Amino acid sequence: MLAFTGSRLDRADNLRADPDAIAGMMNWRARLLALDGLMPGLGDDGALAWSSLAEAPEGCELVFLGTDEGKPCFAAVPDRGDVAPRMANPALWQAMASLRPDDLAIYGGARSLVDWHARHRFCAQCGGKTVLAKGGWQRDCTNCGAQHFPRTDPVTIMLVEYEDRLLLGRGLGWGEGRFSALAGFVEPGESLEEGVAREVFEEAGVVVRDVRYVASQPWPFPSQLMIGCHATAEADAIALDETELAEARWFTRDEVRAALAGDGPFVAPPAQAIAHHLMTWWIEE
Amino acid sequence: MLAFTGSRLDRADNLRADPDAIAGMMNWRARLLALDGLMPGLGDDGALAWSSLAEAPEGCELVFLGTDEGKPCFAAVPDRGDVAPRMANPALWQAMASLRPDDLAIYGGARSLVDWHARHRFCAQCGGKTVLAKGGWQRDCTNCGAQHFPRTDPVTIMLVEYEDRLLLGRGLGWGEGRFSALAGFVEPGESLEEGVAREVFEEAGVVVRDVRYVASQPWPFPSQLMIGCHATAEADAIALDETELAEARWFTRDEVRAALAGDGPFVAPPAQAIAHHLMTWWIEE
Repeated sequence: MLAFTGSRLDRADNLRADPDAIAGMMNWRARLLALDGLMPGLGDDGALAWSSLAEAPEGCELVFLGTDEGKPCFAAVPDRGDVAPRMANPALWQAMASLRPDDLAIYGGARSLVDWHARHRFCAQCGGKTVLAKGGWQRDCTNCGAQHFPRTDPVTIMLVEYEDRLLLGRGLGWGEGRFSALAGFVEPGESLEEGVAREVFEEAGVVVRDVRYVASQPWPFPSQLMIGCHATAEADAIALDETELAEARWFTRDEVRAALAGDGPFVAPPAQAIAHHLMTWWIEE
Repeated sequence: MLAFTGSRLDRADNLRADPDAIAGMMNWRARLLALDGLMPGLGDDGALAWSSLAEAPEGCELVFLGTDEGKPCFAAVPDRGDVAPRMANPALWQAMASLRPDDLAIYGGARSLVDWHARHRFCAQCGGKTVLAKGGWQRDCTNCGAQHFPRTDPVTIMLVEYEDRLLLGRGLGWGEGRFSALAGFVEPGESLEEGVAREVFEEAGVVVRDVRYVASQPWPFPSQLMIGCHATAEADAIALDETELAEARWFTRDEVRAALAGDGPFVAPPAQAIAHHLMTWWIEE
């Protein structure tokens, strides 16, 4: 199972547009996701903690996450979003490693949503104030009436293969020996396949063909949709873009297998990252 | 070739972060994409029209689109974006049908970008004014310093199959007889596969399995990334969400083939839409 997938919530999108339905669900059966800022609150059993709506700060905005076995689930928008989205946070990684998969998926989706609200209190079109609408799946401008929707940013992440070796990169600022799949945001005006080819050429100077889709995963830092692909390189000469990567290297199947087992020539990405899943897929293929 | 793919521009992203490089490219060799609002300007030969930077309105913001055989290409941000993004515009469809594929791709990418700028002159975080940065691939808030990036919204669009028949829907407000593949925005906290399953169940009450990726295409109205998939239905009973669709029906392979040939029991989507491509793929499979 890919991390951040498999939420057990019913998003019940048919209720979002009905303010009476949303208000009606804000009752004693409703559950409020425990968050400390954007960090998950954990119960004694290590599961996501929930409280009642009474615990929500006075006057805060509430997002309707969906229903869990009929129980309405909400999350409160925090004062501040993730101003400089980053995830170099040991407590977060620990929570990610310990949460049950369906809890992690609920947390990830909620985190992306409330973070988006916290960072979109004003209208990009006119600068006016915005207010939460449709149970938290929209914001409306109180001045010009523009509607704004939560953002999901597609990112391609790709295994590039040449003669049974894999191209992996070390990002700027990463620790020595850490390598992962190359990745980049899909830009306006390109297909997934074009995005993959552009990124690999930009970052490593490698031309690829035969891009194919493998798997996808949401990544809520702040709101990426990671789209995992495989591509074949035309040649193995690397021309590194040093403003993007510290290093790029080709690794053999044995080296990747050993790294995934924790005993290789590089440190593989953690199990929660789709890159780990892609490498495992490649080894088992 | 999928519409809006195959741009011949080199995005030259290594130059974007260098203000001197951008300024240096604003010279007599530079070309300005002719736009009337967001509509493409066409030359006598039916190709995209270009002029010199001297034709740009005084003081307008310029987006660096990339280079075309070494020539820097720019587009001017119009006064207004597509306030209520819609594409029921016969002139636009005509331009889409007549432009060369690589011109259509350049136009689509440029349209998404300049439209995004026109609708993001203020900071969603603080309401301050924003200014164009990185050659038009970023906006910076002049008040709080927040950085904003062009938006690309992933949308799943899916062929749902059951016993050699295809589930197609007629959107609200579409003409009688027009059917296309179901589609919907990917939401925070779900994978592509989960998004497909949720949308089909929401709109038609149909449960699907075995979702697989087929193809993708940018769709610049305003900035979708259409991600085409195929899925298998568990059963063919339909429970229509009448707030989303006017109609949903199963069509046989012969019916879809006839419709694509312009002589079927429904009006198929135009060749520029990925739904047309997906149906053709299914027929030829």
